[in-house]
Amino acid sequence: MEAIETRYRTHTCGQLRLSDQGKTISLAGWVHNYRDYGGMVFIDLRDRDGITQLVFTPEGVGADAINLARKLRSEWVISATGVVADRGVDDKGKSLENPKLATGKIEIRVKSFAVLSESPTPPFLPDDREQINEERRLQYRYIDLRRPTMQDTLRTRHRVTRIMRDYLGDLGFWEIETPFLTKSTPEGARDFIVPARLVPGSFYALPQSPQLFKQLLMVGGCDKYMQIVRCFRDEDPRADRQAEFTQLDVEMAFIDRENIISIIEGLLRRIWKEVLNVEIPNPIPHIEYDDAMKLYGSDRPDLRYGMKLHDVTDLAHTTDFGVFKNAPMVKAICVPGGAKLTRKETDALAEWAKGFGAKGLAVTKVAGGAFDTGIAKFVASIAPQLIERTGAKDGDLLCFAADRSKIVHKVLGELRLKMARDLQMTPTQEFAWTWVVNFPLFEWDEEEKRFNSTHHPFTAPLDEDLAKFDSTDRATIESIKSKAYDIVVNGSEIGGGSIRIHRMDVQQKLFALLGIDSESQKLKFGFLLDALHYGAPPHGGIALGLDRLVMILRGINNIRDVIAFPKTQSGADLMCGSPSVVDEKQLRETHIRVALPPAKPA
Amino acid sequence: MEAIETRYRTHTCGQLRLSDQGKTISLAGWVHNYRDYGGMVFIDLRDRDGITQLVFTPEGVGADAINLARKLRSEWVISATGVVADRGVDDKGKSLENPKLATGKIEIRVKSFAVLSESPTPPFLPDDREQINEERRLQYRYIDLRRPTMQDTLRTRHRVTRIMRDYLGDLGFWEIETPFLTKSTPEGARDFIVPARLVPGSFYALPQSPQLFKQLLMVGGCDKYMQIVRCFRDEDPRADRQAEFTQLDVEMAFIDRENIISIIEGLLRRIWKEVLNVEIPNPIPHIEYDDAMKLYGSDRPDLRYGMKLHDVTDLAHTTDFGVFKNAPMVKAICVPGGAKLTRKETDALAEWAKGFGAKGLAVTKVAGGAFDTGIAKFVASIAPQLIERTGAKDGDLLCFAADRSKIVHKVLGELRLKMARDLQMTPTQEFAWTWVVNFPLFEWDEEEKRFNSTHHPFTAPLDEDLAKFDSTDRATIESIKSKAYDIVVNGSEIGGGSIRIHRMDVQQKLFALLGIDSESQKLKFGFLLDALHYGAPPHGGIALGLDRLVMILRGINNIRDVIAFPKTQSGADLMCGSPSVVDEKQLRETHIRVALPPAKPA
Repeated sequence: MEAIETRYRTHTCGQLRLSDQGKTISLAGWVHNYRDYGGMVFIDLRDRDGITQLVFTPEGVGADAINLARKLRSEWVISATGVVADRGVDDKGKSLENPKLATGKIEIRVKSFAVLSESPTPPFLPDDREQINEERRLQYRYIDLRRPTMQDTLRTRHRVTRIMRDYLGDLGFWEIETPFLTKSTPEGARDFIVPARLVPGSFYALPQSPQLFKQLLMVGGCDKYMQIVRCFRDEDPRADRQAEFTQLDVEMAFIDRENIISIIEGLLRRIWKEVLNVEIPNPIPHIEYDDAMKLYGSDRPDLRYGMKLHDVTDLAHTTDFGVFKNAPMVKAICVPGGAKLTRKETDALAEWAKGFGAKGLAVTKVAGGAFDTGIAKFVASIAPQLIERTGAKDGDLLCFAADRSKIVHKVLGELRLKMARDLQMTPTQEFAWTWVVNFPLFEWDEEEKRFNSTHHPFTAPLDEDLAKFDSTDRATIESIKSKAYDIVVNGSEIGGGSIRIHRMDVQQKLFALLGIDSESQKLKFGFLLDALHYGAPPHGGIALGLDRLVMILRGINNIRDVIAFPKTQSGADLMCGSPSVVDEKQLRETHIRVALPPAKPA
Repeated sequence: MEAIETRYRTHTCGQLRLSDQGKTISLAGWVHNYRDYGGMVFIDLRDRDGITQLVFTPEGVGADAINLARKLRSEWVISATGVVADRGVDDKGKSLENPKLATGKIEIRVKSFAVLSESPTPPFLPDDREQINEERRLQYRYIDLRRPTMQDTLRTRHRVTRIMRDYLGDLGFWEIETPFLTKSTPEGARDFIVPARLVPGSFYALPQSPQLFKQLLMVGGCDKYMQIVRCFRDEDPRADRQAEFTQLDVEMAFIDRENIISIIEGLLRRIWKEVLNVEIPNPIPHIEYDDAMKLYGSDRPDLRYGMKLHDVTDLAHTTDFGVFKNAPMVKAICVPGGAKLTRKETDALAEWAKGFGAKGLAVTKVAGGAFDTGIAKFVASIAPQLIERTGAKDGDLLCFAADRSKIVHKVLGELRLKMARDLQMTPTQEFAWTWVVNFPLFEWDEEEKRFNSTHHPFTAPLDEDLAKFDSTDRATIESIKSKAYDIVVNGSEIGGGSIRIHRMDVQQKLFALLGIDSESQKLKFGFLLDALHYGAPPHGGIALGLDRLVMILRGINNIRDVIAFPKTQSGADLMCGSPSVVDEKQLRETHIRVALPPAKPA
């Protein structure tokens, strides 16, 4: 990137090359390193673009100024003017080039310079080699952001959003802003609420997503909408979540599932190509939700690893092993090389499995074409069939779960991921992509004894399942499939969407199936039903999580490392000190009072 | 714009031309008009791109389908397939072309069609010719948005933001997101506050602007930042304000005022060229704040009109007219053609002037090179000098204000605008641009007996005025000029910015001058002072109001017409019904209670 010329600089610290030799230039930036060789001072000057070596000599800057140069310290901000020179070779003819720097062949022989800001020794240096406590990094974020790694992440994030806007803009999508002060809808996650001063006792809510607004834009004839937009969920602390997060929000009219899938694939293909120079398969394969659960025990399967789930219920029922014989479902995964796990380690797995509601986990090792240790003796009778069905080889570990299908799938789905991690398996590919399709429209909530939407209550059913809406049979309702689709890479769901319901009568029936009576429908979603009443086009869309996308592109596991000013798990901004108490006047003006929970007894 | 092909359509309703004649195509959209000529049905089909005429005949669609076609009504949504045909000529050889439509030369001979959504008669038709009550438009925004005018505005808004991102992106600006859940700072406008569930009794505030975050990004080495970002101010209702508004936010390191001015001029030049094909003068002229006040009585002068303020204090003091003789300042404007105002109208002006704190407004008409009516006899002695100084001509009206300079400038500044409006003066140019520079850094608050910042407390003073910070003399402090700059077009301030203070000691002194003691500085701005301590580069930036920019580009006076889902003046969303009461549970979880103001006695 070329610098914009100002009185402080003519170039950036990442820009100059040997071909610039002899030019008089100016740079500005931070002192990254300083070395004082008794009168001759070397400074590595850093800006967003890179690092350039400055050389200060008494002959260059004058006898007085060299004394000032000797005082320069880490993170001082300076501007310097000088001549671009070849670093050349040392006394022994060895090149003085620094091959780690793009500017490593040159240095600047400084003629004059100015100190723009001094700095005391900072709490830590913005150096990627240092391991710094995260709380300190967040407290002094303005120093942390200077680290080249953080700069690379912000650059990537900017590039990704720019590609999104260019790509979708060229296809005729308009970026349209939707409100942040909106209406609280008690369904779904918890809202952040905002007291409305002008309407005492009333509140706005910050949007969990612009879902209804983007649908209304489609009803409003806007045809193709996109927005990179902040969303808010007041959820309980989780390491990989932030209360405010960013999504690419997309909606189109007059489309089917395949149209939006192909557009989003094109977008992801371009991002991966431009940012990583990596090709994404064309097309990305689809997997049905039912198959994903059956084969991988997850609706966001990590396809970088094999270890499919094998249904062995029929075989298990032929044994005398009580755990197997009486289980509604028995499935197995074959962990390649898993036989190296010790007895202690496999026992620990059984304990770990209980965390997912299982009674335990049965294992056995494969050796000499037969089973060894664990439940070997209980399943000896079906050993050849098990080995054939699972494709197990000597040195592998077979792991079995026997329970209701929900628990079997959960445990073995998690076990696949754990084994890949624990055994540091080599992934079959760097990025494994899949679309998950044909989700169930409803999930039965056993506690509340009612249906919930698998995605959200605006998701359309498959056309052929529409007739099932009139059924009163739970299994029939559960068998309704939706026009929802999730895009999954390496076991992370980075986006999800659906074709929406565009008919008022269908939407009303769906609300009714969720137990929302017509009075409540009118109160909460009256404007949506009205909109569907007055000429709604078929429409659908998707939302991609920007934070997670950047994490995957940059190979970063900490969500706070892809956000310029993140909050801690408990929602605190350690730099500004928010949240904080506010003036009594602010409370009075917004017609609220603080009502603290009663103190816990000592 | 080309359509993305789906099963609903191959083209948009604005796309087909005579050169497509004979092609079989599909369109989808809304029934804009229908005309049933006894079996032959004409439909104007509308989508975001335009309108295309569909022709249904029994021969084309079949005898059964023509009956369905006769049932189509306004705002039904259909998809139709047919052949592009020349509209040709009527019986008398007259062209059947509709010259108002881009597709006016062709029509579609429909072969088959499907009704995608019916609609009852909507509350109003999305037709620009109809005058519709604004409350109704906002309540049924999804119908209102279908109006071609609204679509044009959303398209323009999208284009403007795209140009902003392309232009700044190409210059090396990164779009970086700043937090929405941030810290309340009681200075400035009123914050929207958000109770923090996880920290009982604490609150976030929605940002009034990302000012401090963008400065911290500069301290963090991010060099060139931009963001198109929502901001929030909980202000009292005003017709031209929305509680949430959007700004283009820009910040750069290692720059001076002229650098940012030239970059923003380039951006505005590109927007005006691409959207309106209008050239902006290069460079845009600058006016000093003092001159703007002296000559136009405003810091955002509308330069489309003359009517400069003329200082006539010296002349006024030579008269025997008490109002003039004893006034600290007397200024005049000459209203061209203003002599046609009646006595009643000029008397009304004097009343109007009292609304701005003036005691009245003195006027006289120019006729035959002398004064007539009004205060003519009181100023007869200085008539020739007044006429010479103001350049008044026969038929003009001279208006005088005599008072303290603040009131004189306010009244005459407002009077210029009022006269231009009332007399429907022809502007000298469509867009009159100016940068206003060298603002005073402080304003004296007569009520509170202390200084306020004219812009915000992070604005840097001119270098030559830095020494005045140590003064205790009010006039000296008031004479400090800042490195702030506003961009003004046609009397609207569409943006403002400044070079910021990048030295901790200067920032501390400035806070002290505002009466913020060091304890409060630490509490409220400790993180900023820390950041300036640890190596801050010189930096500055600007924010442009997007809503107002689009209003000016589209010649729209109502801010709600440039926002997809605006709120009323009292902050209500008439479509969703927000703000609204929330569940008791939501209040309990966020540790607040509603405390309504006591009811007013009946």
